[in-house]
Amino acid sequence: MLSMTFFAIAPGAGLPGLETPAALVDLDRLERNIARMASYARTHSLALRPHIKTHKATTIAASQLAHGATGLTCATPAEAGVMSAVCDDILLAYPAVGPKLARLMALPRALSLTVALDSAKAVDDLARAARAADRPVRVFVELDVGMHRVGVSAWDEAIALARRVRDSAPLEYAGIAFYPGHIRTDLDSQDAALAALGAAIKSATDALGRAGLAPKVVSGGSTPTVWRTHEIGGITEMRPGTYVYNDRGTAEIGACAPEDCALTVLATVVSTSVPGQAVIDAGAKALGREPMRGVEGEGWGALLDRPEILVTRMSEEHGILDLSRSDWRPSVGELVRVVPNHVCIVVHLNDVVYGVRGERVEKSWRVDARGRSQPMVTS
Amino acid sequence: MLSMTFFAIAPGAGLPGLETPAALVDLDRLERNIARMASYARTHSLALRPHIKTHKATTIAASQLAHGATGLTCATPAEAGVMSAVCDDILLAYPAVGPKLARLMALPRALSLTVALDSAKAVDDLARAARAADRPVRVFVELDVGMHRVGVSAWDEAIALARRVRDSAPLEYAGIAFYPGHIRTDLDSQDAALAALGAAIKSATDALGRAGLAPKVVSGGSTPTVWRTHEIGGITEMRPGTYVYNDRGTAEIGACAPEDCALTVLATVVSTSVPGQAVIDAGAKALGREPMRGVEGEGWGALLDRPEILVTRMSEEHGILDLSRSDWRPSVGELVRVVPNHVCIVVHLNDVVYGVRGERVEKSWRVDARGRSQPMVTS
Repeated sequence: MLSMTFFAIAPGAGLPGLETPAALVDLDRLERNIARMASYARTHSLALRPHIKTHKATTIAASQLAHGATGLTCATPAEAGVMSAVCDDILLAYPAVGPKLARLMALPRALSLTVALDSAKAVDDLARAARAADRPVRVFVELDVGMHRVGVSAWDEAIALARRVRDSAPLEYAGIAFYPGHIRTDLDSQDAALAALGAAIKSATDALGRAGLAPKVVSGGSTPTVWRTHEIGGITEMRPGTYVYNDRGTAEIGACAPEDCALTVLATVVSTSVPGQAVIDAGAKALGREPMRGVEGEGWGALLDRPEILVTRMSEEHGILDLSRSDWRPSVGELVRVVPNHVCIVVHLNDVVYGVRGERVEKSWRVDARGRSQPMVTS
Repeated sequence: MLSMTFFAIAPGAGLPGLETPAALVDLDRLERNIARMASYARTHSLALRPHIKTHKATTIAASQLAHGATGLTCATPAEAGVMSAVCDDILLAYPAVGPKLARLMALPRALSLTVALDSAKAVDDLARAARAADRPVRVFVELDVGMHRVGVSAWDEAIALARRVRDSAPLEYAGIAFYPGHIRTDLDSQDAALAALGAAIKSATDALGRAGLAPKVVSGGSTPTVWRTHEIGGITEMRPGTYVYNDRGTAEIGACAPEDCALTVLATVVSTSVPGQAVIDAGAKALGREPMRGVEGEGWGALLDRPEILVTRMSEEHGILDLSRSDWRPSVGELVRVVPNHVCIVVHLNDVVYGVRGERVEKSWRVDARGRSQPMVTS
């Protein structure tokens, strides 16, 4: 193969210079999204600890930190390892057990590390690893506040876990974490759900307080209610992820406007031979097969400039645009930009993302925390 | 970060030494699958040109070629670039337009290159690039035989395209290609569909023959009918992909036995705090959100050793195992192996795959044709 230098893109190049499919980020929208969330957190005196799962890029994380984020949230020790290059305060919002503990303990010692967990086994394994490595690790006890994914829902269990952490130096009991991913779009039900959530958090913190385990940090929130996070009584820290790029799903639930969607997938029309449709070179391997929330027939993405045109079918490398709602008839070779349903999955499918200003490619960056840095078998 | 050498795996290591989620390939099954397909193609005198989309690894491609494959099929010029290290005869089963043409023409000159296409625009652009690069390119005209994705369905259009190719040196008209991805599981309908397909191919080749454009190569087939490819009248070449690894979907449609599924995703139970379920660290970013074909409630994967246990819900990094059909109650830290619904997507999500023999890790290989080798913006 020729070196990639052969194909390098010059700053200011137009979109036709890019090989498709390619993930484009509108830099104006990105910068606005980052600044808006930083302003929201500041206004409400909430610590902002963005989840890097959406962008997986140190350059975006550095921008979030420059705008006042107090730390980062990661899902895997591999992500934390990459992000430790730009951040000295990381929450692993995921229990670490097994070989993940070795990678966690290998993180730079100057890094303030917090782990969220929900089991005695996770406490004990983490404590053993921390003792062997002689490094302090802060711990959040994860509560289940209604999503029923992870977390404890009985406060006596939360108290028992918090106590176990406190008694397991060098672990440090630092607070509680929750993810109310079950609270959805509808505003009436949101009001009731947020009130119930606030009451649950208060009852948990009260119970912990009575046991002498009052949480210093109450860390939570989710994208559907992200702009109402301050209404959750007692919350001190938010961990939003999707807001940097947003997507069709975020817009549909009202957590952003359509013009806040910063990431699009640039694709090329490769076939128009079947009447009523056009085929683009972005299929499931570029867009992910992520449905809109429970809405049938909403497709796998929509065109940025023609939102009535949906990607209605996909193969691995083919996306079928349904032209039945439009008079538009594209030609083979024409470029389109697809707003994906779920941007976190799209980013996870790319090694490089291109930053565009209008129709010009301004820069690019590596999705450097993508992948799991898996070791090879070597004798 | 520490160098990856720190985490290197020794050959013969047990599965608990691997950081999860990790893609494991059962080497006995892989070798059997490769040999079986090679034997089938040989028995029926069909040229075997495997599609590398499933494994995306030069080491597996080399094994396919060693077993008698006559060449490889790729979906993108980037894949073809990687595969050119082990193969000198590659079919790009995808029209190349735009910047993809530059990458295609940069492939090693010793490589015999074939492109499948379905439009005059694709012929003209390819011819222009081939003339500028002064290299011959073989062309298949793509037929739509009922899937309605790409391809021409009127034989006069096929004739016009074939003639256009023939008259566009250094392009060489080499034959026709088709992908009958619409023919599904049910055996009764398969009989009728295969008969209809054979008749369609015969009518196309007859029409092309009358125009002096008889195809030398008739290239086609699909996984649901892969073991009946020889029944398609006139076919000379098959391009199967999934057979190397297989998956739940392949087994469900009867194109393999459950014990032919070679790839599993190793995952760790990370939470059991919510009653009736266990959470593993393989979610949509490890398994892909690929449904079984039109079957609701069949989940996103099933455990290898407990096929009644399904991954019924997923977040990006969480997979929820429904325990309601079982008395099995796993502990945090326990390892499980998930047979995915659609293995091609799983491989696309991994940089490294581990080859196991029984419960021992024997080797690993890079998914070296994953990603799109995208250039950076450099001034």
